[in-house]
Amino acid sequence: MIISPILDRKSNKPLYIQLYEYIKTEITTGLLKPHSKLPSIREASSTLNLSKTTIESAYSQLVAEGYIDNVPKKGFFICDLSEYNFDNIEPSPKHTVQHYKEIQYLNEGVDRDSFDISIWRRLYNKAITDPETNIYNSCSPQGEEFLREEISNFVNTMRGGKTVPRQVVVGAGVQYLLGILIGIIKNKYDTVAVEKPGFNKAKFVFEDYNFKIRHIAVNDSGFPVSELRKSDAKVVYISPSHQYPLGTIMPVNKRMELLDWAYKNKGLIIEDDYDGMIRYGGMPIPSLQGLDKNDCVVYLGSFSKTLLPSLRISYMIIPKKLLPIYVEIKNRYTQSTSKIDQMVLAHFMNEGHMVKHLRRIKRIYKKKNSSLTECLKNTFKDKIEINSSDSGLHIVCSAKTNKDNQQIKEDAKKFRILLNMIHRNDSKLMFSLNYSGINLERIQDFTNLLGKVLYE
Amino acid sequence: MIISPILDRKSNKPLYIQLYEYIKTEITTGLLKPHSKLPSIREASSTLNLSKTTIESAYSQLVAEGYIDNVPKKGFFICDLSEYNFDNIEPSPKHTVQHYKEIQYLNEGVDRDSFDISIWRRLYNKAITDPETNIYNSCSPQGEEFLREEISNFVNTMRGGKTVPRQVVVGAGVQYLLGILIGIIKNKYDTVAVEKPGFNKAKFVFEDYNFKIRHIAVNDSGFPVSELRKSDAKVVYISPSHQYPLGTIMPVNKRMELLDWAYKNKGLIIEDDYDGMIRYGGMPIPSLQGLDKNDCVVYLGSFSKTLLPSLRISYMIIPKKLLPIYVEIKNRYTQSTSKIDQMVLAHFMNEGHMVKHLRRIKRIYKKKNSSLTECLKNTFKDKIEINSSDSGLHIVCSAKTNKDNQQIKEDAKKFRILLNMIHRNDSKLMFSLNYSGINLERIQDFTNLLGKVLYE
Repeated sequence: MIISPILDRKSNKPLYIQLYEYIKTEITTGLLKPHSKLPSIREASSTLNLSKTTIESAYSQLVAEGYIDNVPKKGFFICDLSEYNFDNIEPSPKHTVQHYKEIQYLNEGVDRDSFDISIWRRLYNKAITDPETNIYNSCSPQGEEFLREEISNFVNTMRGGKTVPRQVVVGAGVQYLLGILIGIIKNKYDTVAVEKPGFNKAKFVFEDYNFKIRHIAVNDSGFPVSELRKSDAKVVYISPSHQYPLGTIMPVNKRMELLDWAYKNKGLIIEDDYDGMIRYGGMPIPSLQGLDKNDCVVYLGSFSKTLLPSLRISYMIIPKKLLPIYVEIKNRYTQSTSKIDQMVLAHFMNEGHMVKHLRRIKRIYKKKNSSLTECLKNTFKDKIEINSSDSGLHIVCSAKTNKDNQQIKEDAKKFRILLNMIHRNDSKLMFSLNYSGINLERIQDFTNLLGKVLYE
Repeated sequence: MIISPILDRKSNKPLYIQLYEYIKTEITTGLLKPHSKLPSIREASSTLNLSKTTIESAYSQLVAEGYIDNVPKKGFFICDLSEYNFDNIEPSPKHTVQHYKEIQYLNEGVDRDSFDISIWRRLYNKAITDPETNIYNSCSPQGEEFLREEISNFVNTMRGGKTVPRQVVVGAGVQYLLGILIGIIKNKYDTVAVEKPGFNKAKFVFEDYNFKIRHIAVNDSGFPVSELRKSDAKVVYISPSHQYPLGTIMPVNKRMELLDWAYKNKGLIIEDDYDGMIRYGGMPIPSLQGLDKNDCVVYLGSFSKTLLPSLRISYMIIPKKLLPIYVEIKNRYTQSTSKIDQMVLAHFMNEGHMVKHLRRIKRIYKKKNSSLTECLKNTFKDKIEINSSDSGLHIVCSAKTNKDNQQIKEDAKKFRILLNMIHRNDSKLMFSLNYSGINLERIQDFTNLLGKVLYE
C-alpha cells in the first residue's frame, strides 16, 4: 500500500505530527482499509523522503492511540474501526480572547480604601518564596497549622470563642466547609432547621446532600427556639450575632435556651458568624461558641466581608467531640484554599494587621451606615422605614411602594443596585441593602437611584 | 443597689469594657439578683468616678446582649437568667503560635526548578492592583471570563478538545467541581461506575452525595467497557489518557465504544485528565472530550500537577446539553478559587508562559522518569518489575517482597517516601511511585531508601 501525504516542510508543525494526522484521517474516513499493511518504516522513509525517526514517531503515536497495530516481524497494520463513526471530530478553531466585565453593583463588595494592598503584596512576595510555604507540595487538608493557630487566637480574643488550633478547618468558602461537616455528621443527622429568611447558600448545600429542611420563621424578637423544639430537626443553622438578613441580635437568655436545647437533644448548632466582627454600637456580641459548655456548636467564619470577597478563605471550628470522626475522614477531602494565600493571611494576622484593619473598617462602615440611614430618611421621609442596624454591612428597610416586584428587580439591576427582597405584605416591601461598597461621597446619588428603583 | 468594680485605669482595656465584664460576671454568678435595679447612669458615674459615657457604653452593651433591661423612665434592671448555668464560660487564654512543619515526602509535589516564581509574582502584583480584577467585589460563580476563555483555548489546542468558554467552570479542586456537577445531574442519575484501582477522592464525593458506587476492575488491557455495559451505572468516572494509577492508555476503539455506550444509554462520561498533558513518548493522547460527537463527556482538568499543587485551580467542562440546568443553578454555588489567582493564571496563559512551562516540565520529568527506571532496574534487578509508563508523574512497580504491608507503609513514612499500594498477590506487591518531586541528583539515594522500605 502507498501513502501520499501532502506535507508542509515550512510549517512549524513537526513533520511527524503532519504525517500522523494524515494517516489518522485516512483511517477514520475509511480511505485506509482495516487490516491493510502500512509501508515499513524503511519504505516510507525512502518514498516520502523523510527520516526514519519521523516515520517511527508518527507510527508509534498511532500505535499508542490504537489506530494501527505493530505486529512483531510482520509490520504495521490498520486497526478495524469501521464500526465507528468519526464525522467532524476535528478540534474547534482557536477563538480570540476578549476581556469581559461583569455587572458591578454600586453597593456590593468591601470599601475601596479599607484594604492596604501594599502590605498584602509584600507578604505575598515573601510567602511565595518562603521555604516554609513550600509551594511545590500540596496543601494540608485541614489547613496550614500556622494559619489555624492564628485563627484560633483570633476567634478566642475577638469573638470570645473557646478554641484550639486542631478544631480549626480552613476552606474556600462556607459551602465547601459545610460539605466536609456533612461528611462528619451525615450518619447521625438527616434534618436541618434553617432561619427564614436566612442564608440560602447554606440551605442549598444541605439540599444537595439530601438533608430534610425545616424552615423556622424569624420574628421581630428573633429566632424562636420554641419553634425549633417543636420541629424534628436536631441540627440548626443560625446567625445569632447578626441575623442574616434581618439583623436581629440573639439575647443571652435565648442563647442559653438554644444551647440547652442542643444539649438535651444531642443536637448540633451551626453558628454562622459572617459579620459578627463588625458592630458600631459597642463591642461585637460574643459568639455562641464561647458560651457553649457542652461542645454542641460548630462555628463558621469567613474573611470575605472583613477582608476581601475576592480571596476565598473561610474557616470552620469543629466541636472537640466531632474531632475523632473528622481526623478519620479528613484525608478524603483536598484543601480548597491556596497554601500561599493561607500563609499570607497567617503572617497578616500574626503581624497584627488584621486587628488594625478591623478597626479601620469599623470606622468607615459606621460613617457609611449613619450617612445612608440619614440620607434615606431625609429623602423618603415616612415612605421608608429603616430597621436600625448597628452592625454588619447592610441595613434592612421597609418601603411603601405599589411598584411591581419584578419591575423593581429589573430596575435595581439596571441602576447597578444590589437589593435583596425579603418579603412583601400589602403595599410594603421589605429588603436588605448592602452599603459596604458605596462610595461615601456618592451616598446621596445612590439614594436618588434607589428612589428611581422603588418609585419610578 | 451599689456596684463596686475594681477597675484598672492603667490597663489598655477600656474602662467601659472592664465595667461591662464586671457586671456581666456579677449577673452570671448570681451575685446581682434578677429584677434588681442598677444604679442610674448619673449615680454610677459619680460613685465610681467614671464619665457618663463610660457607664452608658457598659450598660448599652449589657442591654444589647440581654443581661439587663432598659425600662424607659424606670431605669436598668437585671434580667432573670437564674435558670441557666454559666460555669466556666470565660474565653480560653491566648496560646502561643509556633510554626509547624508537615512531613514532606521526597518524591511528592512538582519539580523545584520547573516553576518560574518571578513571572508569577510579577503577574500577581499586576493583577491585584488591576481595576479589571476588582478585588473588592466577589468572584463570578462560574469563574472569570478571561480565564475561562484561556482554558477553553488551552483544552482545544493542547488536548484536542472541542469547547467554548461558557462550558468552562473554574473551581478550587476537582472535588468541589464534582459537587457542582452532582447538583446538575442528581435528578437524572444516582449510580456511578468508577475504575478499580482508581482515583478515590472522586469516589468519596459521590459517596458523600449518596450515589451508588459500581467498581469496575481495570485489567491489563485497560478499562473493560463490556463490564460497564453489564452494570446499572449510567455515569462513569474514568481517566482514559493515563489511567490512575495503572497508567494504561485507552485505545481509540475502546474510546469509541465508550462514547457509543454513553450515547445509546443516555449516559454521562466524566473524563479525569489529571496529567494527560505530560507524555514523553510522543504527543499527548487527544482527550475523549474532543472525540465526543454526542455531548456526553464532562472533562475535568487541574493545574495541580502541571503548575503548582499549592495553588488550588481546577476546571470542569460541561457538555452543552447540561448548560441550561447549570445556568439555572449556578448562583447556588459560590466561587471557590481566588479571583486574583484566576486573573494571574489567565495572564500567565495569555502571555504564553503555560505552554513554555509545559515544554520545560516535559523535559525535566522525562529525565527523572528514565533515570529512576534505570536506577531501579540496576539496583533491584528482577526483584522489581516496572510497568513502563511514558507519561505522567508516577510509575507503577511490582516488587517481589515478603515484608509485611503495614511495615512497608510505616517505613515508607519514616523515610519520607510517598508510595501508594495498589494491591498484593502472593509475594508480589504492586504500588505506584511519584517521581516528580525527587531531586534528579538524588535518585540513586532515593532508590536506596526505597530498598530499605521494601526489603529491610
